[in-house]
Amino acid sequence: MALLKSWIDSANSATTSFPLNNLPYGVFSVEGGPLRCGTAIGDQILDLTALEHNGVLRADADRDVLSGSDWNAFMALGAEVWGQYRAALTDLLVDGSEAQDTLAAFLVPADHATLHMPITVAEYTDFYAGKHHATNVGTMFRGAENALPPNWLHIPIGYNGRASSVVVSGTDIRRPWGQLKGPNDETPRFGPSQRFDIELEMGAIVGQPSNGPIGVDQADANIFGYVLLNDWSARDIQAWEYQPLGPFQAKATATSISPWIVTKAALEPFRCDTPEREKELLPHLRDTGPMLYDLPLSVTLNGETIARTNYKDMYYSAAQQLAHHTTSGCPMRVGDLLGSGTISGPEKENRGSLLELSWGGKEPLDTASGPRSFIEDGDTLALHGAAQGDGYTIGFGDCIGTVLPAHDDPFKG
Amino acid sequence: MALLKSWIDSANSATTSFPLNNLPYGVFSVEGGPLRCGTAIGDQILDLTALEHNGVLRADADRDVLSGSDWNAFMALGAEVWGQYRAALTDLLVDGSEAQDTLAAFLVPADHATLHMPITVAEYTDFYAGKHHATNVGTMFRGAENALPPNWLHIPIGYNGRASSVVVSGTDIRRPWGQLKGPNDETPRFGPSQRFDIELEMGAIVGQPSNGPIGVDQADANIFGYVLLNDWSARDIQAWEYQPLGPFQAKATATSISPWIVTKAALEPFRCDTPEREKELLPHLRDTGPMLYDLPLSVTLNGETIARTNYKDMYYSAAQQLAHHTTSGCPMRVGDLLGSGTISGPEKENRGSLLELSWGGKEPLDTASGPRSFIEDGDTLALHGAAQGDGYTIGFGDCIGTVLPAHDDPFKG
Repeated sequence: MALLKSWIDSANSATTSFPLNNLPYGVFSVEGGPLRCGTAIGDQILDLTALEHNGVLRADADRDVLSGSDWNAFMALGAEVWGQYRAALTDLLVDGSEAQDTLAAFLVPADHATLHMPITVAEYTDFYAGKHHATNVGTMFRGAENALPPNWLHIPIGYNGRASSVVVSGTDIRRPWGQLKGPNDETPRFGPSQRFDIELEMGAIVGQPSNGPIGVDQADANIFGYVLLNDWSARDIQAWEYQPLGPFQAKATATSISPWIVTKAALEPFRCDTPEREKELLPHLRDTGPMLYDLPLSVTLNGETIARTNYKDMYYSAAQQLAHHTTSGCPMRVGDLLGSGTISGPEKENRGSLLELSWGGKEPLDTASGPRSFIEDGDTLALHGAAQGDGYTIGFGDCIGTVLPAHDDPFKG
Repeated sequence: MALLKSWIDSANSATTSFPLNNLPYGVFSVEGGPLRCGTAIGDQILDLTALEHNGVLRADADRDVLSGSDWNAFMALGAEVWGQYRAALTDLLVDGSEAQDTLAAFLVPADHATLHMPITVAEYTDFYAGKHHATNVGTMFRGAENALPPNWLHIPIGYNGRASSVVVSGTDIRRPWGQLKGPNDETPRFGPSQRFDIELEMGAIVGQPSNGPIGVDQADANIFGYVLLNDWSARDIQAWEYQPLGPFQAKATATSISPWIVTKAALEPFRCDTPEREKELLPHLRDTGPMLYDLPLSVTLNGETIARTNYKDMYYSAAQQLAHHTTSGCPMRVGDLLGSGTISGPEKENRGSLLELSWGGKEPLDTASGPRSFIEDGDTLALHGAAQGDGYTIGFGDCIGTVLPAHDDPFKG
């Protein structure tokens, strides 16, 4: 697929993340004004709440669904509406459209806007579906022979995360306190995490509800779109707390997502197969077509690239994860967010966490900001994603966060 | 504290769970009509949505908060309003009240009403804070010497559950399918759970938000009330999936709660201390007063009592669990539900799960319905709770569910 030309010049630039082919969905405000739903087009944001209000473009004839605070009501309308709306929006913005004069009043320069959470997160689930990551972490903790848990090649392992802690890119992240106990400590103590880390992930957004087991095809159909996701992780808190019921406070400080939801439609040209299975999956978890995406990803620390990887290196797709999530009859809701798990590739420079990049702190990373085993106070970490089309790029907006020093002891007067 | 006499005779009966001392909050409907907020008083339900609408009793002068679908907006008003509202409600219902004639029109016989979810669950967290339960389960899985994980006496271990699966008492529970692999199976298979179980728990409802670490005192103040909670658990699914990230689909089929929220105020006379600490807790997790409750609990299987225990046997209080939950900065919201963990006592008959009662299936329970290791299709399980005051009883309404046979293979035709 080639670049779709728009009458908005900046959307045709070779460097934009937001050509007409993208049309990602987000929520923005201007100078403290009310929240509005919008789409990024070149260096502009088109105010879709205003278009709905003025009757220029409506997703539902009878009811406002873009009243501003999130995209949940729009998602609930279902895939047919998603497609119709995108097609109509494309018609309005395509080069030669007669809507140019009408729409000019509804465009806001992106650099005048503040971006907010694009969805209300119903619940947040985080998976562990990257084989390189699971192997790296398993090797560090259990040795190379027992790196992968026995169930790992049979089910996409996941745990429930904490939806209340999901924040939009740009939100500062406060280093957490937690209960810590090193292998040589006699007793635990309460202190700020010393091994605070990132996890480079993709987040899949569930756009349709289900109330019982669904297959991988239906799961793929129920996914609305994708965001970049950084699952901030306190490795030292996790090491002490996670047996036997999994990570809890180690992952509850914050999870950042990119401000723009890139729809499945925009990512369609980049679909690719999951890697070859090492063990055959049970029938209900087999993918029935290409359900991963060829999406180059990178991590920067204070502006310097420290890792490059690709979403296509995951072992399980989001559709497989969602299908597994429903096997027990677990009801899924509009706005559920599924983290892919850390995306690492086969080489050292493809590792999506500092835990892996510094091999548990044993091989500190040499960066322009100095050696890094884990995050230091003041560090700014950013995730980037850019699918490369034929003459265009599909981006998400960066997923960025700066780590602030821990508070003083929160329990001292 | 003695029985508070009401002008509603049935509330003064020795056998009611709903004397004037209780005033639990729930949501009901009559003959398919709209949802209403109400309180149980004797064998009646007082329609509090109607009282608000008619101006007889309002929690907020300017805004309706009991419009019917849940108690969340009421909870958000805070502890001062909780106290004022309860005092005003008590005045209306106390023996000798002049409101008797006014209120008569707003009473509904409880047996004409259908009960619904009393709150919208924001997020659901389940703990593992019963020492007898953890010791029993640990002994079965790891042997008596390693029964308790090393962190267990230092933090209330918990994991995030699935809010979408929380249902009100009376909802039928469908036996789940899941990926299963016994210790002697070569490969996993997908089938209905054969070891489906209950967990007798209390649920604490968070009524005030927090956005950073809070101490145990504040945590106790933020709890609105308690419900009975049955965390339905598929032991065979859990055994295969739970390493390394904890329970996921094994606990996602359903969690049932009792229809009535018993407020902290009603439970105040039953406060008691947590058991003696075996290891001193870090200062921020120490309770500062009696924060458990002397609350006798029981489980019936098809009407026959199979276990009796007491909430006071827990090692950690809900306040300690909530305080721990916030240590990382995790934001808590109005409507968060915290499961206590399975409540077992020291003796065999005090065990709050079939896993423990049948010792993993090795010692099937002899019941009037036949021998039971785990739940059989058609079994009705119910949790009961009744705090014994001086001449009165505080109850929750039963927490009941009947297990339906698994569907045919959900992924076949």
